[in-house]
Amino acid sequence: MSRSFYPPQRTLMGPGPSDVSPRVLGALARPTIGHLDPLFVELMDEVKALLQYAFQTDNQLTLPVSAPGSAGMEACFVNLLSPGDKVIVCQNGVFGGRMKENVERCGATAVMVQDDWGQPVSVDKVAAAFDAHPDTAILAFVHAETSTGVRSDAEALCALARERGALSIVDTVTSLGGIELQVDAWGADAVYSGTQKCLSCIPGLSPVTFSPRAVERIQNRDHKVQSWFLDMQLVMGYWGGGGKRAYHHTAPVNDVYALHEALLMLREEGLAAAHARHRHNHEALVAGLEAMGLAMAVAPEHRLPQLNSVLIPDGVDDAAVRTILLREFDLEIGAGLGALAGRTWRIGLMGFASSERNVLYCLAALEAALAREGAPIKAGAAVPAAMAVFAA
Amino acid sequence: MSRSFYPPQRTLMGPGPSDVSPRVLGALARPTIGHLDPLFVELMDEVKALLQYAFQTDNQLTLPVSAPGSAGMEACFVNLLSPGDKVIVCQNGVFGGRMKENVERCGATAVMVQDDWGQPVSVDKVAAAFDAHPDTAILAFVHAETSTGVRSDAEALCALARERGALSIVDTVTSLGGIELQVDAWGADAVYSGTQKCLSCIPGLSPVTFSPRAVERIQNRDHKVQSWFLDMQLVMGYWGGGGKRAYHHTAPVNDVYALHEALLMLREEGLAAAHARHRHNHEALVAGLEAMGLAMAVAPEHRLPQLNSVLIPDGVDDAAVRTILLREFDLEIGAGLGALAGRTWRIGLMGFASSERNVLYCLAALEAALAREGAPIKAGAAVPAAMAVFAA
Repeated sequence: MSRSFYPPQRTLMGPGPSDVSPRVLGALARPTIGHLDPLFVELMDEVKALLQYAFQTDNQLTLPVSAPGSAGMEACFVNLLSPGDKVIVCQNGVFGGRMKENVERCGATAVMVQDDWGQPVSVDKVAAAFDAHPDTAILAFVHAETSTGVRSDAEALCALARERGALSIVDTVTSLGGIELQVDAWGADAVYSGTQKCLSCIPGLSPVTFSPRAVERIQNRDHKVQSWFLDMQLVMGYWGGGGKRAYHHTAPVNDVYALHEALLMLREEGLAAAHARHRHNHEALVAGLEAMGLAMAVAPEHRLPQLNSVLIPDGVDDAAVRTILLREFDLEIGAGLGALAGRTWRIGLMGFASSERNVLYCLAALEAALAREGAPIKAGAAVPAAMAVFAA
Repeated sequence: MSRSFYPPQRTLMGPGPSDVSPRVLGALARPTIGHLDPLFVELMDEVKALLQYAFQTDNQLTLPVSAPGSAGMEACFVNLLSPGDKVIVCQNGVFGGRMKENVERCGATAVMVQDDWGQPVSVDKVAAAFDAHPDTAILAFVHAETSTGVRSDAEALCALARERGALSIVDTVTSLGGIELQVDAWGADAVYSGTQKCLSCIPGLSPVTFSPRAVERIQNRDHKVQSWFLDMQLVMGYWGGGGKRAYHHTAPVNDVYALHEALLMLREEGLAAAHARHRHNHEALVAGLEAMGLAMAVAPEHRLPQLNSVLIPDGVDDAAVRTILLREFDLEIGAGLGALAGRTWRIGLMGFASSERNVLYCLAALEAALAREGAPIKAGAAVPAAMAVFAA
């Protein structure tokens, strides 16, 4: 019955996981050492420093949670919230709804600020919510909504939270490494991300960082965090640095090797260069898609370069096109989610996958699949349009 | 500053992680595919079937939690407990104490049954605790205590729980794959394990299985599980099988490749053969240690073959010996924990690391290190004693 699994070499241009660099896969497969081995402890210190660079922060409490981004989200909520707290949660896609779930499971109250899917969070509405709820303890929002491809103004939202005496919880799962993110300069308090998006690492870890204000809140809690596994007071004892490490749980040693290598690659390229690359490939992709006759779902000023939402032309079978791409081109793009299910595709250009090769391959394959499905597209225009951007 | 990390090739004979087979590391590094890719969904079904074999269960709710064993522990507690529940927790080492933490963070009450570290859980004491607390909802205990190397009678404890109308939560982190474990025949209800012990896989995942009685309890909860990430009603939608998979979180795709390969290896060898191998290598190691003049910390009838607690001879510097082993022999053995810190070493013979080669290497290296530290050992006796067991 079962036998060894040899996956095909897909090109991953969905909402994540994105293509993982061979360098990262190579690091992943290096020999396992103990999670308390002095060499591993040194590696943890390097990972911390590299994450501080990626997040642009000096926060001491900066580490990868040993579980996917959803657990990083939960780590921020369960450590900062207490029952009865009031939290303003901004929802303009799937992940705001998940934040609400987290707030409620902490026994806290969520004040929802709704924006349409495909729109950024309205800073004015959030200000009005603070006016109506001056006792709000936390503002929570998503920087880069993976479900829609929209960027919200994290800098303005963090500033507003500070102004109103609240802490901020910021979802940067899809933004870290792809667009500007300045944790210290913006004054973000609890920030979580994922490894499988613009860091181009395997899925499974969730980098987090907590400001001194957030750490103070954690240290002054008057009752225990409801999750033992995610309790930062305990996790700090293992990841905290300085002196003896206290055993908390067994770190996913090989995954940490992979994250270290992915972060090194980001540092070698430099954040500014990585952001410019994401932007440039995005511009080429959009030029190609529009030349083909497709329309983007998000207004230009709010688009994420790493996650491109495209409207599915009327009459075209969403699943049929994605199946052709996967089966015949080994190319994965993402379906729409929630309010946008069946109405959009999500094309990722994240990290290692944000390359000229992937832009051109995706345009060529998508054109072929759409032609097969009888969509009214302009043939032969997409690749030259993208090439023109690259040549510019 | 930072550069790529090339770990040494350690021999991992501590309490875990254990040596990972090159076959498993090879699987780990295969190209990442999407977590909703039809091929990955097929792989998930195979992993489920292989875990059912390893656990000896037909439980439908059998899957790897996407985080280390501590998260698997927490998944069992947060899904089965409600505030106000009474839980009998058996403590005869570190991990019973962690169970108590979990119970209390669920707002439930822990009734502790204490046994000395190095002793198994007393079934009589547990029966007395049920007599004193007939309204107990759950019995929680550790099958194979990693901190001491002791096996408790899981079959008798699970039977007792059933008899008293309670569900059982069983920690099998160190037992799965190393000693007999019969989830269905014993009637265990919620069972969690880890990948980095006798499965010889990388650390980072936690296989769990829930009996139909446990699933019923979960489905009849009158309030939400306090952890969103670990809520089995949601996780089931992704891992449940049968029809469409609902996105819950991004599975650690490459880690699942590795677990699949490790479970295949276990299945190829067969559970009975794997258990016999662990026993045989354990007997050879003990013969060698005793020939050297060392004494085991646990009585023969309670020893775990996969985790051997040895008393540190008087006057010998615990850390100095372990440092020699690590630096000069690239050999990791474990320190004692808690009540046994400084008094024992823990020598693991887990999964792929349970081999004649490792037994002989460990004996030779330990003898050299002890001689260097001036310990009163009998030189030259250990390896022949072990060889005699292998030859028998």
